[in-house]
Amino acid sequence: MTTVQEPKFTNFDDNDQKPVGFGRMLRKEDPRFLRGRGRYTDDVQLPGMLHLAILRAPFAHARIVSVDTSAAEASPGVKLVVTGAMLAEKGLAWMPTLSNDVQAVLATDKVRFQGQEVAFVVADDRYAARDALELIDVEYDVLEPVVDARRALEAGAPLIRDDLTDKADNHVFDWETGDEAATEAVFANADVVVVEDIVYPRVHPAPMETCGAVADFDSIDGKLRLWSTTQAPHAHRTLYAIVAGIPEHKIQVIAPDIGGGFGNKVPIYPGYVCAIVGSILTGKPVKWMEDRSENLISTGFARDYIMRGEIAATRDGKILAIRTNVLADHGAFNGTAAPVKYPAGFFGVFTGSYDIEAAYCKMTAVYTNKAPGGVAYACSFRITEAVYLVERIVDCLAHELDMDPAELRLKNFIQPEQFPYETKTGWVYDSGDYEPTMRLAMDMAGYADLRREQAEKRARGELMGIGIAFFTEAVGAGPRKDMDILGLGMADGCELRIHPTGKAVVRLSVQTQGQGHETTFAQIIAEEIGIPPADIEVVHGDTDQTPFGLGTYGSRSTPVSGAAAALVARKVRDKAQLIASAMLEVSVADLDWAKGSFVVKGDPGKSVTIQDIAMRAHGAGDLPDGVEGGLEAQICYNPSNLTYPHGAYICVVDIDPGTAQVKVRRFIAVDDCGARINPMIIEGQVHGGLTDGVGMALMEMIAFDEDGNCLGASLMDYLIPTALEVPDWETGFTVTPSPHHPIGAKGVGESATVGSPPAIVNAVVDALKPFGVRHADMPLTPSRVWDAMRGQATPPI
Amino acid sequence: MTTVQEPKFTNFDDNDQKPVGFGRMLRKEDPRFLRGRGRYTDDVQLPGMLHLAILRAPFAHARIVSVDTSAAEASPGVKLVVTGAMLAEKGLAWMPTLSNDVQAVLATDKVRFQGQEVAFVVADDRYAARDALELIDVEYDVLEPVVDARRALEAGAPLIRDDLTDKADNHVFDWETGDEAATEAVFANADVVVVEDIVYPRVHPAPMETCGAVADFDSIDGKLRLWSTTQAPHAHRTLYAIVAGIPEHKIQVIAPDIGGGFGNKVPIYPGYVCAIVGSILTGKPVKWMEDRSENLISTGFARDYIMRGEIAATRDGKILAIRTNVLADHGAFNGTAAPVKYPAGFFGVFTGSYDIEAAYCKMTAVYTNKAPGGVAYACSFRITEAVYLVERIVDCLAHELDMDPAELRLKNFIQPEQFPYETKTGWVYDSGDYEPTMRLAMDMAGYADLRREQAEKRARGELMGIGIAFFTEAVGAGPRKDMDILGLGMADGCELRIHPTGKAVVRLSVQTQGQGHETTFAQIIAEEIGIPPADIEVVHGDTDQTPFGLGTYGSRSTPVSGAAAALVARKVRDKAQLIASAMLEVSVADLDWAKGSFVVKGDPGKSVTIQDIAMRAHGAGDLPDGVEGGLEAQICYNPSNLTYPHGAYICVVDIDPGTAQVKVRRFIAVDDCGARINPMIIEGQVHGGLTDGVGMALMEMIAFDEDGNCLGASLMDYLIPTALEVPDWETGFTVTPSPHHPIGAKGVGESATVGSPPAIVNAVVDALKPFGVRHADMPLTPSRVWDAMRGQATPPI
Repeated sequence: MTTVQEPKFTNFDDNDQKPVGFGRMLRKEDPRFLRGRGRYTDDVQLPGMLHLAILRAPFAHARIVSVDTSAAEASPGVKLVVTGAMLAEKGLAWMPTLSNDVQAVLATDKVRFQGQEVAFVVADDRYAARDALELIDVEYDVLEPVVDARRALEAGAPLIRDDLTDKADNHVFDWETGDEAATEAVFANADVVVVEDIVYPRVHPAPMETCGAVADFDSIDGKLRLWSTTQAPHAHRTLYAIVAGIPEHKIQVIAPDIGGGFGNKVPIYPGYVCAIVGSILTGKPVKWMEDRSENLISTGFARDYIMRGEIAATRDGKILAIRTNVLADHGAFNGTAAPVKYPAGFFGVFTGSYDIEAAYCKMTAVYTNKAPGGVAYACSFRITEAVYLVERIVDCLAHELDMDPAELRLKNFIQPEQFPYETKTGWVYDSGDYEPTMRLAMDMAGYADLRREQAEKRARGELMGIGIAFFTEAVGAGPRKDMDILGLGMADGCELRIHPTGKAVVRLSVQTQGQGHETTFAQIIAEEIGIPPADIEVVHGDTDQTPFGLGTYGSRSTPVSGAAAALVARKVRDKAQLIASAMLEVSVADLDWAKGSFVVKGDPGKSVTIQDIAMRAHGAGDLPDGVEGGLEAQICYNPSNLTYPHGAYICVVDIDPGTAQVKVRRFIAVDDCGARINPMIIEGQVHGGLTDGVGMALMEMIAFDEDGNCLGASLMDYLIPTALEVPDWETGFTVTPSPHHPIGAKGVGESATVGSPPAIVNAVVDALKPFGVRHADMPLTPSRVWDAMRGQATPPI
Repeated sequence: MTTVQEPKFTNFDDNDQKPVGFGRMLRKEDPRFLRGRGRYTDDVQLPGMLHLAILRAPFAHARIVSVDTSAAEASPGVKLVVTGAMLAEKGLAWMPTLSNDVQAVLATDKVRFQGQEVAFVVADDRYAARDALELIDVEYDVLEPVVDARRALEAGAPLIRDDLTDKADNHVFDWETGDEAATEAVFANADVVVVEDIVYPRVHPAPMETCGAVADFDSIDGKLRLWSTTQAPHAHRTLYAIVAGIPEHKIQVIAPDIGGGFGNKVPIYPGYVCAIVGSILTGKPVKWMEDRSENLISTGFARDYIMRGEIAATRDGKILAIRTNVLADHGAFNGTAAPVKYPAGFFGVFTGSYDIEAAYCKMTAVYTNKAPGGVAYACSFRITEAVYLVERIVDCLAHELDMDPAELRLKNFIQPEQFPYETKTGWVYDSGDYEPTMRLAMDMAGYADLRREQAEKRARGELMGIGIAFFTEAVGAGPRKDMDILGLGMADGCELRIHPTGKAVVRLSVQTQGQGHETTFAQIIAEEIGIPPADIEVVHGDTDQTPFGLGTYGSRSTPVSGAAAALVARKVRDKAQLIASAMLEVSVADLDWAKGSFVVKGDPGKSVTIQDIAMRAHGAGDLPDGVEGGLEAQICYNPSNLTYPHGAYICVVDIDPGTAQVKVRRFIAVDDCGARINPMIIEGQVHGGLTDGVGMALMEMIAFDEDGNCLGASLMDYLIPTALEVPDWETGFTVTPSPHHPIGAKGVGESATVGSPPAIVNAVVDALKPFGVRHADMPLTPSRVWDAMRGQATPPI
């Protein structure tokens, strides 16, 4: 059931609001963004608002000897100076994480990473607050920092988390999945075994908007309003209730417009808690906004995986087994509300898109003297690393077999008749049809022609590479217990209310950081209930206005909340049909739904519109027996499975042999995310993810020196791609609907971020094949490529 | 089933939040009011907000010859001057009412009452706006004003509403109820017939806060936010959508804290529409707040009924029939959104608490050159007038029969076994047990002793009066078609959501103007779901946050929304029970509900609290099959009948024979409003209504001179009672639950306003019995009493 055609839903015509439903439609939210009228957290201005600034540790590992705040307190405009010791008196110096440990709000005993929060100042304005930070006198006793995850495991390494009574070393956890013995048996008997050490370096999501919050605690009614840059307002609310002791019904978390999330805005940062404390203690609203450097050195890192990949195959290219060993660097803390409770969870799909006999993974996670890591940066927790590993090691196998990497993949794909397909690690892929997706990408690329061109160029000494990555994503957390990161389930609520005049409001538990929810969800409702998208208000991001749900991450909005929206609309439609049957005086069975009206079967002149029905539903009497007034419904939707989008990416690079500069010349991305609601928005998501991939593959890495100083504290040091570094993306789509999603949709928000780095690295390595290169680690900067060309492996970290 | 005991609900102890439910509990909303932290419309401050002032007509009836705004436009700080002609260009000069006619927003052709809106100015501040009003030059051609409703019906009277093509005279409507012929037959054969002309003068609710609005129209997303002093935010929203063409989903009406409503804040006033127009045209937020004089001369009048009451009885005091003829003065317009579509509706219960053979009422309503009248000022649309009429005419009958008025009433009460009782005008009283209520009031008053005291004083020439009024109220609009004032039904929505930590939020369609909803509804939910009231947030007054419903008037909050709240809580409890059965691994039938937890029958050690269940409901998995996650429900409740509270009031007055000053010495009020949720709040409602009654009976009347000038334009002229004019109220209660309300409650918000004026007037007339006085019209000011003592009837209007 794969097709390159759009699914047969009503097409939405931009020029006419009447036809409703799926299709290319300009984003409803864009007018405010395009006119500079977005409303971000830093736009929140409240009467009497104060400003908060955070003093951060200059050392990666040091004992705090003393803190003197007297000069800061005397500084002009300063209202409040708070240290860890002061928080400790109130039991707020540490906050529990979801990983059964704790994270410091403000350091008390020692600092554990450079940039850690030590104290904060609240003052009349941002300048006064920042100036006063300079006046806080902290005496440190510097300790040996642990910067390398391998050092963390060595005997004699400094114990970083001496605050935890149950930790005698720097282990966070050990975890395994798959069948070790069965895998070893396959490996022992295989024709070919390839082993490669592969590093996914520490990167930062670097959203355009940094993190921040405005806390406004009303001492009269005891209510906290918190505007914050969060991807998960409801989860944050529940956690604030548990952590801070403010009752849940007295907390309103508002995520206004958010300038990008990418996982960076899932955790609860100490700054949010500081803003709350600041507002409680001053009785005034308090704003905290990071600057760029604070965001880069202290919030929401991802990756930092040292992996050994092993693959066993027959001589003719049948993959038999995959085995991997991972050392994960979690930094000094597991982030509060960060999805690191089952940190290895999604790494379980490391067997990729291939039908193999056995698989085994062992993972060890450690604390180091780095900022907290492990955010779900466009990766559905770790699937980015897993896909990178498998797609890299499969290419290494192709290298060893001297086999075309496309051919190798096509030979090993899970076949359409095998779905639902259970992997050797226990994940059940809902649907997939991989070969047509791969073939479409190859057709779009002109794969054979590219290989011919490459051969010609190689003959001339030019460095051209063609890289392929094929991925299966697992998105839509989700029903699995090991994904229940909050212990709060993974269901999403959704409410739909039709007003008397037939306009609608839909309330989502998920919210948007730029993904276009206000459009996509209006289209879902429009498709189901026949009200034009312009007549549908999409409300999200305010816990006072929306039902409970876990938030927006892991590409779960469409798979979970999208399903909830479709199903709640069907509930409303079912009720509308009952009312229509009374209005038209026919039985429910005698009515056909005609996208916006119910029509009497065989008598097309007799019909009522959904708007007529809405007015009737709000009128007195004349409703069928047992039908309540109003036209609305609510749902709490817990999906029966994840959705598993897939995609085939082909990257063409040219490398300047003189400068070793990699240029991505072409990038063909064929995504299959099931039914597509708004292809334009999906393409935008893919374009963004591919750009992410260029950054990670070629430019981005948060590095530390041996003292634990972060070397990526500005966008001058931490390079992110711009329009100059990316090609014109060539996108294509196949459609394999999810069988368990009511409209067959899968998530697509992270696919390109997951799939593009291996495609680019595979292309670069392919370009370097004349030099005998089988692997090189990201980021493939000119110096690393230069080294690789000369047979020198750059130390991975 | 009448008792003076509290119903057997869990008692709520002020000092302990653990026991939950009904009982005396301090009001949850009071901390913000007592500390001056209420948030009223005039407290709304928005960046860049402008201020609006309205130019009002100096004449009651005049043609507009010309309007020159040039000087006003040039005045400092003025941003905008708008006239009726400008609105007419946009089709906004008139707004439809719910009475099938229209109301002027700004006058175009002529002004029809003194104080009518003629133009408005928007300026930087309130002072600049008011100053500029003086510079608008309006030329008028003055016409004959119609001030007396009787003049309106005369041939040759000026045609007031010449804008209406279907009106050739000043009739608004003619209406009748009951059986005219059957009533005439009874009257023709009765032993005794008493006829009296009785006037209920025009009064004003005079809430402490005047009316106003802040309109904020966002041109980017097309959304209108309107803070306004409204008792019916949802109904207003729908009407703005219909009237102004702004789509309903793009309108948010917020009723913040409201400083008293009393029906005055049900209509849509031209000022609200002006503020909206002002915001749209300036692109800025616009605030409009009335001053006291504007409120008194132009908004929300009530009563103004000229009534002839006739009663037929046997010589021994059995009442046989009641007949009445009413002339109702509606002023120049029917107010938009004012419940005057079926203006005579509740007057239908004019037969009171008596079991009679026949009844007939004829009513005529007319336009006059007065401000729009007919608001539901604590009267459930007209029941105040009806009760006053019947209780006055019954006293006249007692006077004629020389019978004790208590005895006469006791002889004629509908008996408990007759309920549900259908009146001769087709109203079905749900429940009642009148005699115990009457007896309790008489006991509390020491009625026999009072009569003895009166006799002694009369013998000494002192003027002491004892007045009785017994009323049956009809509240909780409601299921009757003739009460569907908006054509939008009379149902109330309610939503209850339990958060993961077991705290709750309940969202009401009704809101509060001081009635204590935040407490009462928390208690209802607490009683049903076992969560302490302190853990329940009550949300109301914001159309973006609450389900649709018609608003707060006619004492309908507890009868309709209170029922909705109880039933939605039971829905949630039913779901909780399913989850509890899974948690405790027993069948649903094996669980007992123990006010906050489910306990296994016969094994009291095995139980789960509602808080445990809430967390489970938000956790992954482990819910029974078919049970959605979350713990919440919604309802749209349409009651099957009204509720009919009743009450017996006894008033004792002393009149100074030298000054004719009336002093209310004692007032005994026994109310029966069914089950009582918070007796303290109920007593507060009764105290307020009794004070209203003192005002209407003794002090208040909006009078007009022959030119149509309003003589009550300030609180120096329109006297309202203060603590100095009222006695210490003596309240008592009986409890006759409503059989169709889930907790047996009836509305009580207006009972005392309805019942106290006849009790006071009856007392004054009783005091004047030595002078042969049988009737005197309100307000019984010293001059009127003086005249009555001298046998001179003051002209009623």
